[in-house]
Amino acid sequence: MTPPSSLRSLRWFGLVLLWPLLLQAAEPLPSWNDGPSKKAIVSFVEAVTTQGSKDYVAPAERIAVFDNDGTLWSEQPMYFQVLFALDEVKRLAPEHPEWKEQQPFKAVLEGDMKTVAAGGMEGLMKIVGATHTGISTEAFTANAEAWLAKTKHPKSAKPFTEMVFQPMLELLDYLRANGFKPYIVSGGEVVFMRAFAEEVYGIPPEQVIGTTFVTQYQYNDGKPQILRMPKLAHNDDGPGKPETIDSVIGRRPILAFGNSDGDLQMLQWTAGGSGKRFMGLVHHTDAKREWAYDRQSSIGKLDKALDEAKAKNWTVVDMASEWNRVYPYDTAATGQ
Amino acid sequence: MTPPSSLRSLRWFGLVLLWPLLLQAAEPLPSWNDGPSKKAIVSFVEAVTTQGSKDYVAPAERIAVFDNDGTLWSEQPMYFQVLFALDEVKRLAPEHPEWKEQQPFKAVLEGDMKTVAAGGMEGLMKIVGATHTGISTEAFTANAEAWLAKTKHPKSAKPFTEMVFQPMLELLDYLRANGFKPYIVSGGEVVFMRAFAEEVYGIPPEQVIGTTFVTQYQYNDGKPQILRMPKLAHNDDGPGKPETIDSVIGRRPILAFGNSDGDLQMLQWTAGGSGKRFMGLVHHTDAKREWAYDRQSSIGKLDKALDEAKAKNWTVVDMASEWNRVYPYDTAATGQ
Repeated sequence: MTPPSSLRSLRWFGLVLLWPLLLQAAEPLPSWNDGPSKKAIVSFVEAVTTQGSKDYVAPAERIAVFDNDGTLWSEQPMYFQVLFALDEVKRLAPEHPEWKEQQPFKAVLEGDMKTVAAGGMEGLMKIVGATHTGISTEAFTANAEAWLAKTKHPKSAKPFTEMVFQPMLELLDYLRANGFKPYIVSGGEVVFMRAFAEEVYGIPPEQVIGTTFVTQYQYNDGKPQILRMPKLAHNDDGPGKPETIDSVIGRRPILAFGNSDGDLQMLQWTAGGSGKRFMGLVHHTDAKREWAYDRQSSIGKLDKALDEAKAKNWTVVDMASEWNRVYPYDTAATGQ
Repeated sequence: MTPPSSLRSLRWFGLVLLWPLLLQAAEPLPSWNDGPSKKAIVSFVEAVTTQGSKDYVAPAERIAVFDNDGTLWSEQPMYFQVLFALDEVKRLAPEHPEWKEQQPFKAVLEGDMKTVAAGGMEGLMKIVGATHTGISTEAFTANAEAWLAKTKHPKSAKPFTEMVFQPMLELLDYLRANGFKPYIVSGGEVVFMRAFAEEVYGIPPEQVIGTTFVTQYQYNDGKPQILRMPKLAHNDDGPGKPETIDSVIGRRPILAFGNSDGDLQMLQWTAGGSGKRFMGLVHHTDAKREWAYDRQSSIGKLDKALDEAKAKNWTVVDMASEWNRVYPYDTAATGQ
């Protein structure tokens, strides 16, 4: 049966409109070379989204979780949130004349990073406490946004929000286009990450899970505010990740991506569910375009998780060979 | 210009398909009489969803928060979760012979509710701890589901999941149809509520916020589980509600509905944002179809919040006069 000519021309017009969409569907993940990781991702997504497939997963259950530091953006020479805290100590110093004589603040102000590092976790928590708490969520968000807007990375001289991984942005888009709901589940502090996650990753605040401080609701003169207290509520690292996935999301993810031993438990928890699962690690192997580090690194140490990934056949992304572009500003794709 | 006949018939066909949708749009909230509350709800929703209106709110910001006990379902003669805990003590008693001599368990097993009540909050926490913790999230969910499936309410003899408020179910639907994202923010324990919230309210687990226990990730013999510990992590009542809205959702709601003083801070927090806001209270005034209680009640006490609602012109729903149907099984609507 031949359709009437008006319908035929409509159909032709429709195809023209659909063309870019078809092209996109034919070529997802352009910054990923046709290596084993891209193949594993595409094969997983096709399996769980094909109606009637034995691996089919209903859209509501397509929960994907991503670590942030080292997985969605870089984390060298230091977690970007720590660089923010150090800068905040300098910005706030005029209001705290006592810091000139008080460690670890004195060392931060003098640029003596050796002494800062020697202060270890305890010193760092003092710095984070002084710069991240004692103010409202709104005020802290404004501080984080101001810093992100004006500060450049010490090596690349780019804004931190441009040091996100182009292949991971494409992966987030690809998953969303296939009905997934991507969450960040990260050791980073949750309000700091929310200051850029929606704009940079398209991940809304309610899909950002992270380390939290105790907060206190206050109601002074009819003006309510949420005050951030200098006490950790939840450390969202290692075993803290599946714990917070369980308490906040209440569903087990079917896809998890991390890059360090701090993500191991999240990957185990994801792997432990029934049905098809995807567990991935970004392996920082590219000293030229990004950084190369794993088992010996103090930042983003990848050791036990790398062994477990190999033993269990999880996907390990070799950044140097599998990504033809690292950052969005790297326009010169090398191809394969 | 007259369109070609094929297009005209297409248009007619489209109208026929749209008819049920148009009918629905013309008559939202059928179980609400045309009283002040329904008018306030509809007027608010129209204001924030009309493009170009000065009160327009983008869909992503249309966060709505609902208390559960007494707001979405009944809470008399006792919070349903407490009834569950008491039943669980009886079910688990054979595994705990020591309970026969140990308060408050002895009193529960003997049906001596006077002694149970005399144990106060401390006694209740022992009962809740013994029945809600020490097991995995999965095992607890299964216990809650089993109880909900087989247990009837002592007064209505209906399953608890049928003692939800039909007008609130319609409100949830109406809000979702208008691009809102409804959350439960309740003093109820989060995993207990997730056992029925999706099926009964259409609210998925990740939109259920409540009281939480500390959990512990465990990895024994390669089988990961989340163990519930007998220690409160967050008490999601009173000031705990805006705190958890801030930490979990990270956006301020534009609509909040509660029924007791435990919801006051959530309503204040919602009211404190800029732009148009909706704050509502369900007032239990219907001793015949449900229960009548407010300022003097030990369950769902509504006193300070009622004063503040009146002073600030928040919406107070008079259940007796504004709802023509309370439960879904009340088929005989009285009309207006």
